[in-house]
Amino acid sequence: MEKGYIHIYTGNGKGKTTAALGLSMRAVCAGKKVYFGQFIKGMEYNETKAIEYLPNFEIHQFGKDCFIYNDPTDKDIKRAKEGLEICKEVLSSGEYDVVVLDELNIALYYKLFFVDDVLDILKNKSPKVEVIITGRYAPKELIEFADLVTEMKEIKHYYQKGIIAREGIER
Amino acid sequence: MEKGYIHIYTGNGKGKTTAALGLSMRAVCAGKKVYFGQFIKGMEYNETKAIEYLPNFEIHQFGKDCFIYNDPTDKDIKRAKEGLEICKEVLSSGEYDVVVLDELNIALYYKLFFVDDVLDILKNKSPKVEVIITGRYAPKELIEFADLVTEMKEIKHYYQKGIIAREGIER
Repeated sequence: MEKGYIHIYTGNGKGKTTAALGLSMRAVCAGKKVYFGQFIKGMEYNETKAIEYLPNFEIHQFGKDCFIYNDPTDKDIKRAKEGLEICKEVLSSGEYDVVVLDELNIALYYKLFFVDDVLDILKNKSPKVEVIITGRYAPKELIEFADLVTEMKEIKHYYQKGIIAREGIER
Repeated sequence: MEKGYIHIYTGNGKGKTTAALGLSMRAVCAGKKVYFGQFIKGMEYNETKAIEYLPNFEIHQFGKDCFIYNDPTDKDIKRAKEGLEICKEVLSSGEYDVVVLDELNIALYYKLFFVDDVLDILKNKSPKVEVIITGRYAPKELIEFADLVTEMKEIKHYYQKGIIAREGIER
């Protein structure tokens, strides 16, 4: 059986979730089955509409309808833990070829669950499944465990000019 | 009219073309029209099949069926220049909301055309069009001109272990 690898897209630059989306689309084009899980996020993004176009593509959200700005609430923690439990099933089921754990690093950063929980799940994944983890602040233990790590580094960003996220481009 | 910005994804890390694909998918989901031009590349990739799934998405290639390994040939230069001419029309036409110039930086690196040609075209683009430029070695002049620049930095890569690009994941 072909081995599936673990990718991390981290860093303060743009394009982490976007690269995971692009990889998902490429995988679907190759006849693969993709599960896209979004931690932290619970809002409707344009990407959630992709299910209308792509076969073998599912997107599920394990966040609330707003980001965490200060301390996470009990509800944040509950939803994230439930999401991780679902992803554990998805990863070990052998049903999917690619599993995206979008913003997982942010869930770890806010201590909604812990890196040892994630490592346990990754160690018990179905061997063939390719895993894509995104989010700033990837912890050292996860970077060590992954096969491929890319840092998206912000060189120049128009948010600095006061432009906010625009529909169909950033969200 | 909403202003369209110029993005660059550069650096030696993974995810540049992939992020451009993800952004294209998100734009299509928001009802936008996307033109995806690929310089250097002429091979069939899985992403070229995306036209079967996505409405308002076109992909065109201006390369040969293999990469440039040594000096570019006259054919490489001819195809790239023709591609740039097409992209000039596409960018100024006002017909598209998002235009991707995939691997444009590599075309510049191999001197298939020059940065002043590209700056001219960008200065004459339809104001609303969002432009996504990818490829290693983005030249300084282009970085200065762009609104948003992200460097994909390789932290860890399994190619180092001798694994080659796999269908539906990297290509």
